[in-house]
Amino acid sequence: MADHVYKHIELTGSSQRSIEEAIQNAINKAAQTVRNMRWFLVTEQRGYVEDNTIAYYQVTIKVGFTLED
Amino acid sequence: MADHVYKHIELTGSSQRSIEEAIQNAINKAAQTVRNMRWFLVTEQRGYVEDNTIAYYQVTIKVGFTLED
Amino acid sequence: MADHVYKHIELTGSSQRSIEEAIQNAINKAAQTVRNMRWFLVTEQRGYVEDNTIAYYQVTIKVGFTLED
Amino acid sequence: MADHVYKHIELTGSSQRSIEEAIQNAINKAAQTVRNMRWFLVTEQRGYVEDNTIAYYQVTIKVGFTLED
Amino acid sequence: MADHVYKHIELTGSSQRSIEEAIQNAINKAAQTVRNMRWFLVTEQRGYVEDNTIAYYQVTIKVGFTLED
Amino acid sequence: MADHVYKHIELTGSSQRSIEEAIQNAINKAAQTVRNMRWFLVTEQRGYVEDNTIAYYQVTIKVGFTLED
Amino acid sequence: MADHVYKHIELTGSSQRSIEEAIQNAINKAAQTVRNMRWFLVTEQRGYVEDNTIAYYQVTIKVGFTLED
Amino acid sequence: MADHVYKHIELTGSSQRSIEEAIQNAINKAAQTVRNMRWFLVTEQRGYVEDNTIAYYQVTIKVGFTLED
Amino acid sequence: MADHVYKHIELTGSSQRSIEEAIQNAINKAAQTVRNMRWFLVTEQRGYVEDNTIAYYQVTIKVGFTLED
Amino acid sequence: MADHVYKHIELTGSSQRSIEEAIQNAINKAAQTVRNMRWFLVTEQRGYVEDNTIAYYQVTIKVGFTLED
Amino acid sequence: MADHVYKHIELTGSSQRSIEEAIQNAINKAAQTVRNMRWFLVTEQRGYVEDNTIAYYQVTIKVGFTLED
Amino acid sequence: MADHVYKHIELTGSSQRSIEEAIQNAINKAAQTVRNMRWFLVTEQRGYVEDNTIAYYQVTIKVGFTLED
Repeated sequence: MADHVYKHIELTGSSQRSIEEAIQNAINKAAQTVRNMRWFLVTEQRGYVEDNTIAYYQVTIKVGFTLED
Repeated sequence: MADHVYKHIELTGSSQRSIEEAIQNAINKAAQTVRNMRWFLVTEQRGYVEDNTIAYYQVTIKVGFTLED
Repeated sequence: MADHVYKHIELTGSSQRSIEEAIQNAINKAAQTVRNMRWFLVTEQRGYVEDNTIAYYQVTIKVGFTLED
Repeated sequence: MADHVYKHIELTGSSQRSIEEAIQNAINKAAQTVRNMRWFLVTEQRGYVEDNTIAYYQVTIKVGFTLED
Repeated sequence: MADHVYKHIELTGSSQRSIEEAIQNAINKAAQTVRNMRWFLVTEQRGYVEDNTIAYYQVTIKVGFTLED
Repeated sequence: MADHVYKHIELTGSSQRSIEEAIQNAINKAAQTVRNMRWFLVTEQRGYVEDNTIAYYQVTIKVGFTLED
Repeated sequence: MADHVYKHIELTGSSQRSIEEAIQNAINKAAQTVRNMRWFLVTEQRGYVEDNTIAYYQVTIKVGFTLED
Repeated sequence: MADHVYKHIELTGSSQRSIEEAIQNAINKAAQTVRNMRWFLVTEQRGYVEDNTIAYYQVTIKVGFTLED
Repeated sequence: MADHVYKHIELTGSSQRSIEEAIQNAINKAAQTVRNMRWFLVTEQRGYVEDNTIAYYQVTIKVGFTLED
Repeated sequence: MADHVYKHIELTGSSQRSIEEAIQNAINKAAQTVRNMRWFLVTEQRGYVEDNTIAYYQVTIKVGFTLED
Repeated sequence: MADHVYKHIELTGSSQRSIEEAIQNAINKAAQTVRNMRWFLVTEQRGYVEDNTIAYYQVTIKVGFTLED
Repeated sequence: MADHVYKHIELTGSSQRSIEEAIQNAINKAAQTVRNMRWFLVTEQRGYVEDNTIAYYQVTIKVGFTLED
């Protein structure tokens, strides 16, 4: 790992069920164009409310991936 | 949404099961006096420990609601 | 509680399943050497990604415990 | 001013024209129920984009008002 | 405490004598309309100066109170 | 909106006239390569001074856009 | 620019019209005693309210200027 | 001081009288097991309220002490 | 106050007795060279410990003063 | 510079020798795909330890580059 | 790494030569009592000045180490 | 040190070689007009890039100096 260079991108994913699933949904979508994702950091947890019930969670993450040679 | 004015209140809800349920419990209680809640932002996640086990989660949220005419 | 003195330690726990379980795992390990843990505060939520899937969560907490006489 | 007690509320106002007007719109709406507003502090400046153009600004402020006897 | 929901309000109190008295003055005034205050967190400590002497302290606190059923 | 994934980019735009125009200039340039921009958050407001006059504003924003399927 | 040393000062300017004019007013006053101002960074945006109307903006900036030989 | 290494610990002390006494109470308790404490930094000031009166202050400090050879 | 320009300076004062006296000591010393001080904001509270006792408090403040014409 | 638009990216570079070299390594790798890099801001400095020795530094930077016409 | 629990400690090391050496000096001293140190995060960089020259650097780090079974 | 009052100033120094030299360059220039500098705190580390190489570091520090009687 001593000679890796990482790039970070910031994403927001959503889920009607849980904070964990919102993170996975963001990673699923990013995987269509980004390779070599290694880690994430949660930077914001929000949600939307309808009829006094949590309609969905919105979780923002920074994702780090290795830049390939 | 361009002409809405939102007011924010800050609440702490608790749950013995999960972070998500602690948020919903705060919203349930607030719904007794506040209408038109739209979104929340998690600002603190704490919890209490008894006998080396998480006894309950305590999650603080900012909740935004529309001010009606 | 007015005459208690608390000491805080910072720990990172991991779990393949959920943020909540990562917190409990940190507390389990600390319980081998620390007594009288009372509360925790979540200070960071990270995770590792393998094959575009969350491999495990890594949650950092501050834990407060009472200093005994 | 030495014996005043202030309460703070947090509001988000919107405007299609400017940051300044979004602040004034939030104060206008709050004035329907709050008296004696004295000052504000800008805590967030956002906006919405439609067709690559700023559709409206959304400015969040803390407003302080005197609690009357 | 596991099923309590707290609401937080933010207040600024003043005192010519001490930081501690400024906090108590804010709580005294809030007690005219708020019940069940449980704790406070100091978020800002300011003061005003006249003739090179501290004329009064201005301390801002967040106060948490239980929402009753 | 419950199944959207947003990506955020950070931009700095400039204007000789106003903070608002500096934001729009950043969005104009980004629109040459980015589609579906939805919102922005102001993260820094700077400016340059020449002959004791504001020569231009430099406003940094985070812009969120939807990742398409 | 590689061998410049900058000193920063912090100022608050006011204006009844706009955030931009409050910044320029702070720079005008500082120009009576400070030379070679190069840039500013906005660190706080406040304002005062009278009769539910913004009476004036109060904008705090850090200003950097070159120390001359 | 150029070759000292300091370790920091975080403590919360309480007092019914003042913020200053709460700090000293935390140091008194820590002195039962820690030697060579040199300085402290206040990181949080809270308190508990009973019958609309401050029941006690709770002050959190970081304490630095020299690691001995 | 609408046309005042304030300059801020940052000072650290000390006292063996209290946080309040440390602030006043900083203002006393500054008064030898600065006129028209109006307010202060506490930005850091530290202290030094000798023989497990608070030897003195060290309080850092930002002080605002009016720039005269 | 008044009409430039900058985009920022975030990178983490590593080095076994120094913080400065870790920054340069991140820029070297980014230069394979990004043109017109102008400045960087250090946002995090970490490192890994093996056998009680710093094995390598890991420095995270934001890099700004001009968007070309 | 998925089942590791880390504990973090905070240390300040000094050096007359460089920021990097101050970090290594803190780790050297901690190694007398702590095993399995894995990583560090720089949280503060200070220094002392004598005769207008940097006398020594003082760097504060958080160090993470694995809790053993 | 118990009766010292410190004033803090903020400076940015540059160097083509290292972060440490940029700090010393800022102190050298300030020494032309400020006496009794005691310590510094690093508050920002930036740099400029030319042809994909670090052209120079720009380090911002707060410097504390004793106010003399």
